[in-house]
Amino acid sequence: MSLEGLSINLATVRQQYNFAQAVDACLAQGITSIALWRDQVQAIGLREAARIVEANKLRVTGLCRGGMFPAVDKEGLAAAIDDNKRAIDEAVALHADCLVLVVGGLPKGSRDLPAARQMVADGIAAILPYAREHKMPLAIEPLHPMYAADRACINTLEQALDVCDLLGDGVGVAVDVYHVWWDPKLYEQIARAGAAGRILAHHICDWLVPTRDLLLDRGMMGDGVIDLKSIRAAIEKSGYHGPQEVEIFSSENWWKRPGEEVLSTCAERYLTTCRL
Amino acid sequence: MSLEGLSINLATVRQQYNFAQAVDACLAQGITSIALWRDQVQAIGLREAARIVEANKLRVTGLCRGGMFPAVDKEGLAAAIDDNKRAIDEAVALHADCLVLVVGGLPKGSRDLPAARQMVADGIAAILPYAREHKMPLAIEPLHPMYAADRACINTLEQALDVCDLLGDGVGVAVDVYHVWWDPKLYEQIARAGAAGRILAHHICDWLVPTRDLLLDRGMMGDGVIDLKSIRAAIEKSGYHGPQEVEIFSSENWWKRPGEEVLSTCAERYLTTCRL
Repeated sequence: MSLEGLSINLATVRQQYNFAQAVDACLAQGITSIALWRDQVQAIGLREAARIVEANKLRVTGLCRGGMFPAVDKEGLAAAIDDNKRAIDEAVALHADCLVLVVGGLPKGSRDLPAARQMVADGIAAILPYAREHKMPLAIEPLHPMYAADRACINTLEQALDVCDLLGDGVGVAVDVYHVWWDPKLYEQIARAGAAGRILAHHICDWLVPTRDLLLDRGMMGDGVIDLKSIRAAIEKSGYHGPQEVEIFSSENWWKRPGEEVLSTCAERYLTTCRL
Repeated sequence: MSLEGLSINLATVRQQYNFAQAVDACLAQGITSIALWRDQVQAIGLREAARIVEANKLRVTGLCRGGMFPAVDKEGLAAAIDDNKRAIDEAVALHADCLVLVVGGLPKGSRDLPAARQMVADGIAAILPYAREHKMPLAIEPLHPMYAADRACINTLEQALDVCDLLGDGVGVAVDVYHVWWDPKLYEQIARAGAAGRILAHHICDWLVPTRDLLLDRGMMGDGVIDLKSIRAAIEKSGYHGPQEVEIFSSENWWKRPGEEVLSTCAERYLTTCRL
Protein backbone atom coordinates (compact mmCIF):
# COMPACT_ATOMS: atom_id res chain seq x y z
CA MET A 1 0.00 0.00 0.00
CA SER A 2 1.29 3.42 -0.88
CA LEU A 3 2.27 5.80 1.87
CA GLU A 4 2.72 8.67 -0.57
CA GLY A 5 -0.09 10.61 1.11
CA LEU A 6 1.43 10.27 4.59
CA SER A 7 3.82 12.71 6.21
CA ILE A 8 5.35 12.40 9.67
CA ASN A 9 5.87 15.51 11.71
CA LEU A 10 9.07 14.61 13.53
CA ALA A 11 7.69 15.93 16.82
CA THR A 12 5.80 12.63 16.87
CA VAL A 13 9.07 10.79 17.53
CA ARG A 14 11.07 13.61 19.08
CA GLN A 15 11.84 11.72 22.28
CA GLN A 16 13.10 8.69 20.35
CA TYR A 17 15.16 10.13 17.49
CA ASN A 18 17.30 13.00 16.41
CA PHE A 19 16.75 14.37 12.92
CA ALA A 20 18.98 11.95 11.01
CA GLN A 21 17.72 8.92 12.94
CA ALA A 22 14.11 9.94 12.39
CA VAL A 23 14.65 10.27 8.64
CA ASP A 24 16.23 6.82 8.47
CA ALA A 25 13.38 5.33 10.51
CA CYS A 26 10.77 6.94 8.23
CA LEU A 27 12.51 5.74 5.09
CA ALA A 28 12.70 2.22 6.53
CA GLN A 29 8.89 2.24 6.70
CA GLY A 30 8.50 3.63 3.20
CA ILE A 31 7.57 7.11 4.44
CA THR A 32 9.10 9.86 2.27
CA SER A 33 7.36 12.99 3.56
CA ILE A 34 8.23 14.68 6.83
CA ALA A 35 7.64 17.92 8.68
CA LEU A 36 10.33 19.56 10.76
CA TRP A 37 10.78 21.66 13.85
CA ARG A 38 13.37 24.37 13.92
CA ASP A 39 15.08 23.06 17.04
CA GLN A 40 15.54 19.66 15.42
CA VAL A 41 17.07 21.34 12.37
CA GLN A 42 19.32 23.55 14.47
CA ALA A 43 20.63 20.56 16.40
CA ILE A 44 22.07 19.06 13.21
CA GLY A 45 22.65 22.33 11.37
CA LEU A 46 20.60 23.76 8.53
CA ARG A 47 23.10 22.84 5.83
CA GLU A 48 23.28 19.18 6.88
CA ALA A 49 19.49 19.01 7.31
CA ALA A 50 18.99 20.36 3.78
CA ARG A 51 21.56 17.90 2.44
CA ILE A 52 19.68 14.98 4.02
CA VAL A 53 16.39 16.23 2.59
CA GLU A 54 17.85 16.55 -0.90
CA ALA A 55 19.86 13.33 -0.87
CA ASN A 56 16.77 11.33 0.08
CA LYS A 57 14.34 13.28 -2.11
CA LEU A 58 12.16 13.91 0.95
CA ARG A 59 9.07 16.07 0.73
CA VAL A 60 8.96 18.55 3.63
CA THR A 61 5.29 19.29 4.26
CA GLY A 62 6.04 22.11 6.66
CA LEU A 63 8.54 23.80 8.92
CA CYS A 64 7.37 24.47 12.49
CA ARG A 65 7.26 27.21 13.38
CA GLY A 66 7.07 30.92 12.85
CA GLY A 67 4.62 33.20 14.59
CA MET A 68 4.59 34.22 18.26
CA PHE A 69 4.00 37.86 17.36
CA PRO A 70 2.25 39.44 20.36
CA ALA A 71 4.80 41.23 22.52
CA VAL A 72 4.82 43.63 25.41
CA ASP A 73 6.68 46.32 23.47
CA LYS A 74 7.93 47.33 20.01
CA GLU A 75 11.31 45.74 20.57
CA GLY A 76 9.61 42.43 21.22
CA LEU A 77 7.56 42.70 18.06
CA ALA A 78 10.62 43.67 16.00
CA ALA A 79 12.51 40.67 17.37
CA ALA A 80 9.61 38.40 16.45
CA ILE A 81 9.56 39.76 12.91
CA ASP A 82 13.32 39.21 12.54
CA ASP A 83 12.99 35.67 13.82
CA ASN A 84 10.15 34.96 11.41
CA LYS A 85 12.30 36.12 8.49
CA ARG A 86 15.02 33.68 9.59
CA ALA A 87 12.38 30.96 9.74
CA ILE A 88 11.37 31.80 6.16
CA ASP A 89 15.01 31.47 5.09
CA GLU A 90 15.22 28.07 6.78
CA ALA A 91 11.97 26.89 5.20
CA VAL A 92 13.30 27.91 1.79
CA ALA A 93 16.58 26.05 2.36
CA LEU A 94 14.65 22.92 3.31
CA HIS A 95 12.24 23.21 0.34
CA ALA A 96 9.32 23.16 2.76
CA ASP A 97 5.78 23.38 1.39
CA CYS A 98 5.03 26.11 3.91
CA LEU A 99 6.15 27.81 7.10
CA VAL A 100 3.63 26.99 9.83
CA LEU A 101 2.68 29.95 12.01
CA VAL A 102 1.67 29.41 15.61
CA VAL A 103 0.73 33.01 16.06
CA GLY A 104 1.16 33.53 19.82
CA GLY A 105 -1.19 34.31 22.68
CA LEU A 106 -1.55 37.16 25.12
CA PRO A 107 1.56 39.21 25.89
CA LYS A 108 2.71 38.73 29.47
CA GLY A 109 0.40 40.57 31.86
CA SER A 110 -2.22 41.33 29.25
CA ARG A 111 -5.90 40.36 29.17
CA ASP A 112 -6.55 42.18 25.90
CA LEU A 113 -7.25 39.45 23.36
CA PRO A 114 -8.49 41.79 20.60
CA ALA A 115 -5.20 43.73 20.87
CA ALA A 116 -3.16 40.51 20.67
CA ARG A 117 -5.10 39.51 17.59
CA GLN A 118 -4.35 42.84 15.97
CA MET A 119 -0.64 42.34 16.73
CA VAL A 120 -0.82 38.99 14.97
CA ALA A 121 -2.39 40.45 11.85
CA ASP A 122 0.15 43.27 11.87
CA GLY A 123 3.03 40.84 12.40
CA ILE A 124 2.02 38.59 9.52
CA ALA A 125 1.55 41.66 7.31
CA ALA A 126 5.07 42.72 8.21
CA ILE A 127 6.71 39.46 7.10
CA LEU A 128 4.44 38.73 4.15
CA PRO A 129 6.40 40.74 1.54
CA TYR A 130 9.56 38.85 2.51
CA ALA A 131 7.72 35.52 2.31
CA ARG A 132 6.29 36.37 -1.09
CA GLU A 133 9.68 37.47 -2.38
CA HIS A 134 11.10 34.09 -1.36
CA LYS A 135 8.02 32.18 -2.54
CA MET A 136 7.43 30.63 0.87
CA PRO A 137 3.71 30.26 1.73
CA LEU A 138 2.76 31.13 5.31
CA ALA A 139 0.32 28.72 6.95
CA ILE A 140 -1.64 30.18 9.85
CA GLU A 141 -2.52 27.32 12.15
CA PRO A 142 -5.63 28.04 14.19
CA LEU A 143 -5.05 26.39 17.56
CA HIS A 144 -7.69 24.91 19.82
CA PRO A 145 -9.36 27.56 22.01
CA MET A 146 -7.72 26.02 25.10
CA TYR A 147 -4.45 27.56 23.84
CA ALA A 148 -5.82 31.07 23.27
CA ALA A 149 -3.99 32.56 26.26
CA ASP A 150 -0.54 31.10 25.90
CA ARG A 151 0.05 29.79 22.37
CA ALA A 152 -2.23 31.17 19.69
CA CYS A 153 -5.03 33.71 19.75
CA ILE A 154 -6.26 32.58 16.33
CA ASN A 155 -8.63 29.81 17.31
CA THR A 156 -10.98 29.00 14.45
CA LEU A 157 -10.64 28.46 10.74
CA GLU A 158 -13.12 31.26 10.15
CA GLN A 159 -10.97 33.69 12.09
CA ALA A 160 -7.80 32.57 10.30
CA LEU A 161 -9.45 32.91 6.91
CA ASP A 162 -10.70 36.38 7.77
CA VAL A 163 -7.06 37.33 8.43
CA CYS A 164 -6.02 35.72 5.12
CA ASP A 165 -8.68 37.69 3.27
CA LEU A 166 -7.32 40.90 4.75
CA LEU A 167 -3.73 40.08 3.81
CA GLY A 168 -4.12 38.71 0.27
CA ASP A 169 -1.84 36.23 -1.48
CA GLY A 170 0.93 34.18 0.07
CA VAL A 171 -0.86 33.20 3.24
CA GLY A 172 -3.20 30.31 4.00
CA VAL A 173 -4.04 27.85 6.75
CA ALA A 174 -2.81 24.60 8.25
CA VAL A 175 -5.89 22.53 9.09
CA ASP A 176 -5.02 20.42 12.14
CA VAL A 177 -7.93 18.19 13.09
CA TYR A 178 -6.96 18.32 16.78
CA HIS A 179 -7.60 22.06 16.85
CA VAL A 180 -10.69 22.34 14.68
CA TRP A 181 -12.66 19.08 14.90
CA TRP A 182 -15.17 20.50 17.41
CA ASP A 183 -16.07 23.58 15.35
CA PRO A 184 -19.73 23.74 14.29
CA LYS A 185 -18.61 25.75 11.25
CA LEU A 186 -15.79 23.34 10.31
CA TYR A 187 -17.17 21.98 7.04
CA GLU A 188 -18.36 25.37 5.86
CA GLN A 189 -14.97 26.90 6.55
CA ILE A 190 -13.02 24.03 4.94
CA ALA A 191 -15.03 24.62 1.78
CA ARG A 192 -14.28 28.34 1.99
CA ALA A 193 -10.57 27.70 2.53
CA GLY A 194 -10.29 25.26 -0.34
CA ALA A 195 -12.20 27.43 -2.77
CA ALA A 196 -9.75 30.24 -2.08
CA GLY A 197 -6.72 27.94 -2.43
CA ARG A 198 -5.82 28.62 1.19
CA ILE A 199 -5.29 25.07 2.51
CA LEU A 200 -1.53 24.55 2.81
CA ALA A 201 -1.36 21.59 5.17
CA HIS A 202 -3.56 18.93 6.78
CA HIS A 203 -2.42 17.67 10.17
CA ILE A 204 -3.87 14.56 11.82
CA CYS A 205 -3.96 12.87 15.23
CA ASP A 206 -6.95 12.20 17.50
CA TRP A 207 -8.82 13.65 20.49
CA LEU A 208 -8.82 11.26 23.43
CA VAL A 209 -11.65 10.92 25.94
CA PRO A 210 -10.63 11.67 28.58
CA THR A 211 -7.81 14.04 27.65
CA ARG A 212 -5.44 14.11 30.62
CA ASP A 213 -3.18 17.01 29.70
CA LEU A 214 -3.89 20.15 27.70
CA LEU A 215 -0.68 19.92 25.67
CA LEU A 216 0.84 16.45 25.66
CA ASP A 217 -2.01 13.96 25.48
CA ARG A 218 -2.85 13.75 21.79
CA GLY A 219 -4.05 10.43 20.50
CA MET A 220 -3.12 8.16 17.60
CA MET A 221 -5.59 8.29 14.73
CA GLY A 222 -8.44 5.92 15.50
CA ASP A 223 -8.00 5.98 19.28
CA GLY A 224 -10.22 9.03 19.81
CA VAL A 225 -13.42 10.65 18.62
CA ILE A 226 -12.41 12.70 15.58
CA ASP A 227 -14.21 11.75 12.37
CA LEU A 228 -11.00 11.74 10.35
CA LYS A 229 -12.35 10.41 7.09
CA SER A 230 -15.23 12.88 6.94
CA ILE A 231 -12.86 15.77 7.51
CA ARG A 232 -10.44 14.42 4.88
CA ALA A 233 -13.31 14.01 2.42
CA ALA A 234 -14.29 17.66 2.92
CA ILE A 235 -10.69 18.77 2.49
CA GLU A 236 -10.25 16.82 -0.74
CA LYS A 237 -13.63 17.97 -2.03
CA SER A 238 -12.50 21.54 -1.43
CA GLY A 239 -9.53 20.92 -3.73
CA TYR A 240 -6.61 20.07 -1.42
CA HIS A 241 -4.93 16.72 -2.06
CA GLY A 242 -1.61 17.13 -0.22
CA PRO A 243 -0.30 14.68 2.39
CA GLN A 244 -1.88 14.06 5.75
CA GLU A 245 0.77 14.97 8.32
CA VAL A 246 0.78 13.09 11.63
CA GLU A 247 1.61 15.31 14.59
CA ILE A 248 1.24 13.64 17.99
CA PHE A 249 2.49 15.09 21.28
CA SER A 250 2.07 12.26 23.79
CA SER A 251 4.34 12.38 26.82
CA GLU A 252 2.82 9.38 28.60
CA ASN A 253 2.18 7.03 25.71
CA TRP A 254 3.62 7.40 22.19
CA TRP A 255 6.75 9.26 23.22
CA LYS A 256 7.56 6.34 25.53
CA ARG A 257 7.27 3.62 22.88
CA PRO A 258 9.95 2.49 20.43
CA GLY A 259 10.08 4.86 17.48
CA GLU A 260 9.68 2.02 15.01
CA GLU A 261 6.43 0.97 16.66
CA VAL A 262 5.15 4.55 16.58
CA LEU A 263 5.93 4.97 12.88
CA SER A 264 4.50 1.61 11.84
CA THR A 265 1.33 2.40 13.79
CA CYS A 266 1.09 5.78 12.05
CA ALA A 267 1.41 4.03 8.68
CA GLU A 268 -1.18 1.38 9.50
CA ARG A 269 -3.69 3.87 10.92
CA TYR A 270 -3.17 6.19 7.98
CA LEU A 271 -4.16 3.38 5.65
CA THR A 272 -7.12 2.11 7.70
CA THR A 273 -8.50 5.20 9.36
CA CYS A 274 -7.45 8.31 7.46
CA ARG A 275 -6.97 7.67 3.77
CA LEU A 276 -10.14 7.76 1.65
CA MET B 1 -20.65 47.63 49.49
CA SER B 2 -23.68 45.88 48.06
CA LEU B 3 -23.40 42.27 47.01
CA GLU B 4 -26.83 42.32 45.38
CA GLY B 5 -25.29 41.61 41.97
CA LEU B 6 -23.35 38.57 43.20
CA SER B 7 -24.58 34.99 43.17
CA ILE B 8 -22.68 31.93 44.36
CA ASN B 9 -23.07 28.69 42.50
CA LEU B 10 -22.82 26.24 45.37
CA ALA B 11 -20.50 23.98 43.37
CA THR B 12 -17.87 26.56 44.32
CA VAL B 13 -17.99 25.33 47.93
CA ARG B 14 -19.30 21.82 47.34
CA GLN B 15 -16.41 20.13 49.12
CA GLN B 16 -16.81 22.33 52.19
CA TYR B 17 -20.58 22.58 52.75
CA ASN B 18 -23.86 20.79 52.30
CA PHE B 19 -26.78 22.84 51.03
CA ALA B 20 -27.95 24.23 54.38
CA GLN B 21 -24.41 25.03 55.54
CA ALA B 22 -23.64 26.75 52.26
CA VAL B 23 -26.72 28.94 52.51
CA ASP B 24 -25.82 29.97 56.08
CA ALA B 25 -22.25 30.73 55.00
CA CYS B 26 -23.46 32.88 52.10
CA LEU B 27 -25.92 34.79 54.27
CA ALA B 28 -23.17 35.41 56.83
CA GLN B 29 -21.24 37.24 54.09
CA GLY B 30 -24.29 39.20 52.92
CA ILE B 31 -24.75 37.09 49.80
CA THR B 32 -28.44 36.45 49.05
CA SER B 33 -28.31 34.88 45.58
CA ILE B 34 -27.25 31.30 44.92
CA ALA B 35 -27.32 28.71 42.17
CA LEU B 36 -27.94 25.06 42.89
CA TRP B 37 -27.03 21.61 41.62
CA ARG B 38 -29.61 18.88 41.59
CA ASP B 39 -27.51 16.47 43.65
CA GLN B 40 -27.15 19.08 46.39
CA VAL B 41 -30.91 19.59 46.40
CA GLN B 42 -31.62 15.85 46.41
CA ALA B 43 -29.32 15.34 49.38
CA ILE B 44 -31.50 17.57 51.55
CA GLY B 45 -34.76 16.93 49.74
CA LEU B 46 -36.56 19.26 47.33
CA ARG B 47 -39.20 20.31 49.85
CA GLU B 48 -36.65 21.31 52.50
CA ALA B 49 -34.46 23.03 49.89
CA ALA B 50 -37.45 25.07 48.70
CA ARG B 51 -38.34 25.93 52.30
CA ILE B 52 -34.84 27.25 52.96
CA VAL B 53 -34.94 29.31 49.77
CA GLU B 54 -38.30 30.84 50.68
CA ALA B 55 -37.57 31.38 54.38
CA ASN B 56 -34.38 33.29 53.54
CA LYS B 57 -35.81 35.10 50.51
CA LEU B 58 -32.93 33.78 48.42
CA ARG B 59 -32.73 34.46 44.72
CA VAL B 60 -31.87 31.27 42.83
CA THR B 61 -30.07 32.33 39.67
CA GLY B 62 -30.16 28.86 38.14
CA LEU B 63 -30.59 25.16 38.70
CA CYS B 64 -27.84 22.94 37.28
CA ARG B 65 -28.52 21.00 35.23
CA GLY B 66 -30.75 19.61 32.55
CA GLY B 67 -29.52 18.53 29.14
CA MET B 68 -27.40 15.47 28.31
CA PHE B 69 -29.64 14.61 25.38
CA PRO B 70 -27.47 12.61 22.92
CA ALA B 71 -28.07 8.92 23.44
CA VAL B 72 -27.26 5.68 21.69
CA ASP B 73 -30.92 4.74 21.21
CA LYS B 74 -34.49 6.02 21.48
CA GLU B 75 -34.89 4.69 25.00
CA GLY B 76 -31.90 6.75 26.08
CA LEU B 77 -33.31 9.90 24.51
CA ALA B 78 -36.74 9.26 26.08
CA ALA B 79 -35.11 8.83 29.50
CA ALA B 80 -33.22 12.08 29.03
CA ILE B 81 -36.42 13.90 28.15
CA ASP B 82 -38.19 12.52 31.23
CA ASP B 83 -35.30 13.54 33.44
CA ASN B 84 -35.31 17.04 31.97
CA LYS B 85 -39.00 17.40 32.78
CA ARG B 86 -38.26 16.46 36.38
CA ALA B 87 -35.50 19.05 36.40
CA ILE B 88 -38.00 21.65 35.19
CA ASP B 89 -40.33 20.70 38.06
CA GLU B 90 -37.49 21.10 40.54
CA ALA B 91 -36.46 24.46 39.09
CA VAL B 92 -40.05 25.66 39.43
CA ALA B 93 -40.24 24.48 43.05
CA LEU B 94 -37.03 26.37 43.82
CA HIS B 95 -38.17 29.53 42.00
CA ALA B 96 -35.03 29.38 39.86
CA ASP B 97 -34.46 32.05 37.24
CA CYS B 98 -33.68 29.30 34.71
CA LEU B 99 -32.81 25.66 34.24
CA VAL B 100 -29.24 25.46 32.92
CA LEU B 101 -28.76 22.95 30.09
CA VAL B 102 -25.42 21.21 29.66
CA VAL B 103 -26.53 19.61 26.45
CA GLY B 104 -24.31 16.49 26.28
CA GLY B 105 -21.52 15.33 23.99
CA LEU B 106 -21.11 12.38 21.65
CA PRO B 107 -23.08 9.22 22.43
CA LYS B 108 -20.82 6.34 23.49
CA GLY B 109 -18.97 4.95 20.47
CA SER B 110 -19.98 7.77 18.12
CA ARG B 111 -17.81 10.20 16.20
CA ASP B 112 -20.76 11.93 14.56
CA LEU B 113 -20.84 15.40 16.05
CA PRO B 114 -23.43 16.81 13.61
CA ALA B 115 -25.80 13.97 14.59
CA ALA B 116 -25.24 14.65 18.30
CA ARG B 117 -26.02 18.31 17.69
CA GLN B 118 -29.25 17.39 15.95
CA MET B 119 -30.21 15.20 18.94
CA VAL B 120 -29.64 18.19 21.20
CA ALA B 121 -31.87 20.46 19.14
CA ASP B 122 -34.54 17.74 19.00
CA GLY B 123 -34.27 17.09 22.73
CA ILE B 124 -34.68 20.74 23.67
CA ALA B 125 -37.60 21.02 21.25
CA ALA B 126 -39.19 18.03 23.01
CA ILE B 127 -39.07 19.60 26.49
CA LEU B 128 -39.73 23.19 25.48
CA PRO B 129 -43.56 23.00 25.54
CA TYR B 130 -43.38 21.65 29.10
CA ALA B 131 -40.94 24.37 30.11
CA ARG B 132 -43.13 27.08 28.60
CA GLU B 133 -46.23 25.69 30.30
CA HIS B 134 -44.43 25.93 33.65
CA LYS B 135 -42.86 29.27 32.80
CA MET B 136 -39.32 27.98 33.35
CA PRO B 137 -36.76 29.46 30.93
CA LEU B 138 -34.21 27.01 29.54
CA ALA B 139 -30.62 28.33 29.43
CA ILE B 140 -28.39 26.57 26.92
CA GLU B 141 -24.84 26.85 28.24
CA PRO B 142 -22.29 26.65 25.45
CA LEU B 143 -19.30 24.82 26.92
CA HIS B 144 -15.68 25.32 25.99
CA PRO B 145 -14.69 23.33 22.89
CA MET B 146 -12.47 21.09 25.04
CA TYR B 147 -15.70 19.54 26.35
CA ALA B 148 -17.26 18.88 22.93
CA ALA B 149 -16.77 15.12 23.11
CA ASP B 150 -17.91 14.32 26.61
CA ARG B 151 -20.02 17.13 28.03
CA ALA B 152 -21.57 19.50 25.53
CA CYS B 153 -21.51 19.65 21.75
CA ILE B 154 -22.80 23.22 21.77
CA ASN B 155 -19.54 25.15 21.98
CA THR B 156 -20.05 28.74 20.95
CA LEU B 157 -22.59 31.44 21.67
CA GLU B 158 -23.28 31.74 17.96
CA GLN B 159 -24.16 28.06 17.72
CA ALA B 160 -26.36 28.24 20.85
CA LEU B 161 -28.18 31.29 19.53
CA ASP B 162 -28.76 29.61 16.18
CA VAL B 163 -30.50 26.81 18.10
CA CYS B 164 -32.52 29.37 20.07
CA ASP B 165 -33.60 31.05 16.84
CA LEU B 166 -34.86 27.74 15.51
CA LEU B 167 -36.79 26.97 18.69
CA GLY B 168 -38.44 30.29 19.48
CA ASP B 169 -39.51 31.59 22.88
CA GLY B 170 -38.66 30.12 26.27
CA VAL B 171 -35.04 29.30 25.57
CA GLY B 172 -31.89 31.41 25.90
CA VAL B 173 -28.26 31.13 26.93
CA ALA B 174 -26.10 31.08 30.04
CA VAL B 175 -22.97 33.08 29.27
CA ASP B 176 -20.12 31.55 31.27
CA VAL B 177 -16.91 33.49 30.73
CA TYR B 178 -14.80 30.35 31.21
CA HIS B 179 -16.36 28.77 28.16
CA VAL B 180 -16.61 31.76 25.82
CA TRP B 181 -13.84 34.21 26.68
CA TRP B 182 -11.57 33.06 23.81
CA ASP B 183 -14.20 33.43 21.09
CA PRO B 184 -13.31 35.97 18.37
CA LYS B 185 -17.06 36.53 17.87
CA LEU B 186 -17.83 36.93 21.58
CA TYR B 187 -18.80 40.59 21.64
CA GLU B 188 -20.83 40.37 18.45
CA GLN B 189 -22.74 37.37 19.79
CA ILE B 190 -23.32 38.92 23.23
CA ALA B 191 -24.94 41.86 21.47
CA ARG B 192 -27.07 39.50 19.41
CA ALA B 193 -28.11 37.53 22.49
CA GLY B 194 -29.01 40.59 24.49
CA ALA B 195 -30.98 42.19 21.66
CA ALA B 196 -33.09 39.04 21.43
CA GLY B 197 -33.61 38.89 25.23
CA ARG B 198 -31.79 35.56 25.30
CA ILE B 199 -29.28 36.12 28.11
CA LEU B 200 -30.57 34.23 31.14
CA ALA B 201 -27.44 33.98 33.28
CA HIS B 202 -23.88 35.31 33.51
CA HIS B 203 -21.34 32.96 35.12
CA ILE B 204 -17.88 34.08 36.20
CA CYS B 205 -14.54 32.61 37.23
CA ASP B 206 -11.14 32.88 35.50
CA TRP B 207 -8.88 31.04 33.05
CA LEU B 208 -5.55 30.19 34.65
CA VAL B 209 -2.23 30.05 32.78
CA PRO B 210 -1.21 27.30 32.91
CA THR B 211 -4.43 25.32 33.29
CA ARG B 212 -3.47 21.98 34.85
CA ASP B 213 -6.70 20.03 34.45
CA LEU B 214 -9.40 20.23 31.82
CA LEU B 215 -12.25 20.12 34.33
CA LEU B 216 -11.19 21.06 37.84
CA ASP B 217 -8.70 23.91 37.54
CA ARG B 218 -10.83 27.01 37.19
CA GLY B 219 -9.47 30.18 38.69
CA MET B 220 -10.81 32.84 41.04
CA MET B 221 -11.77 36.06 39.28
CA GLY B 222 -8.65 38.17 38.86
CA ASP B 223 -6.19 35.28 39.02
CA GLY B 224 -6.32 34.53 35.29
CA VAL B 225 -6.49 36.20 31.92
CA ILE B 226 -10.19 36.79 31.28
CA ASP B 227 -11.14 40.43 30.75
CA LEU B 228 -14.10 40.18 33.13
CA LYS B 229 -15.11 43.84 33.18
CA SER B 230 -15.13 44.19 29.40
CA ILE B 231 -17.33 41.14 29.06
CA ARG B 232 -19.65 42.39 31.80
CA ALA B 233 -19.84 45.78 30.12
CA ALA B 234 -20.89 44.15 26.84
CA ILE B 235 -23.50 42.05 28.66
CA GLU B 236 -24.99 45.05 30.43
CA LYS B 237 -24.92 47.10 27.24
CA SER B 238 -26.86 44.33 25.55
CA GLY B 239 -29.60 44.72 28.17
CA TYR B 240 -28.88 42.03 30.78
CA HIS B 241 -28.40 43.27 34.33
CA GLY B 242 -28.87 40.09 36.38
CA PRO B 243 -26.37 38.82 38.94
CA GLN B 244 -22.90 37.57 38.16
CA GLU B 245 -22.79 33.96 39.35
CA VAL B 246 -19.46 32.58 40.56
CA GLU B 247 -18.90 28.96 39.52
CA ILE B 248 -15.43 27.61 40.33
CA PHE B 249 -14.40 23.95 40.11
CA SER B 250 -10.98 23.81 41.71
CA SER B 251 -9.93 20.47 43.16
CA GLU B 252 -6.40 21.51 44.13
CA ASN B 253 -6.96 25.03 45.39
CA TRP B 254 -10.33 26.56 46.27
CA TRP B 255 -12.05 23.31 47.18
CA LYS B 256 -9.28 22.74 49.72
CA ARG B 257 -9.63 26.09 51.49
CA PRO B 258 -12.07 26.98 54.27
CA GLY B 259 -15.48 27.81 52.79
CA GLU B 260 -15.58 31.15 54.58
CA GLU B 261 -12.32 32.18 52.91
CA VAL B 262 -13.61 31.13 49.50
CA LEU B 263 -16.83 33.08 49.88
CA SER B 264 -15.17 36.21 51.24
CA THR B 265 -12.68 36.08 48.35
CA CYS B 266 -15.54 35.76 45.87
CA ALA B 267 -17.20 38.80 47.41
CA GLU B 268 -14.02 40.87 47.40
CA ARG B 269 -13.09 39.95 43.84
CA TYR B 270 -16.63 40.59 42.67
CA LEU B 271 -16.41 44.13 44.00
CA THR B 272 -12.89 44.85 42.71
CA THR B 273 -12.62 42.84 39.51
CA CYS B 274 -16.09 42.11 38.12
CA ARG B 275 -18.62 44.77 39.04
CA LEU B 276 -18.68 47.82 36.78
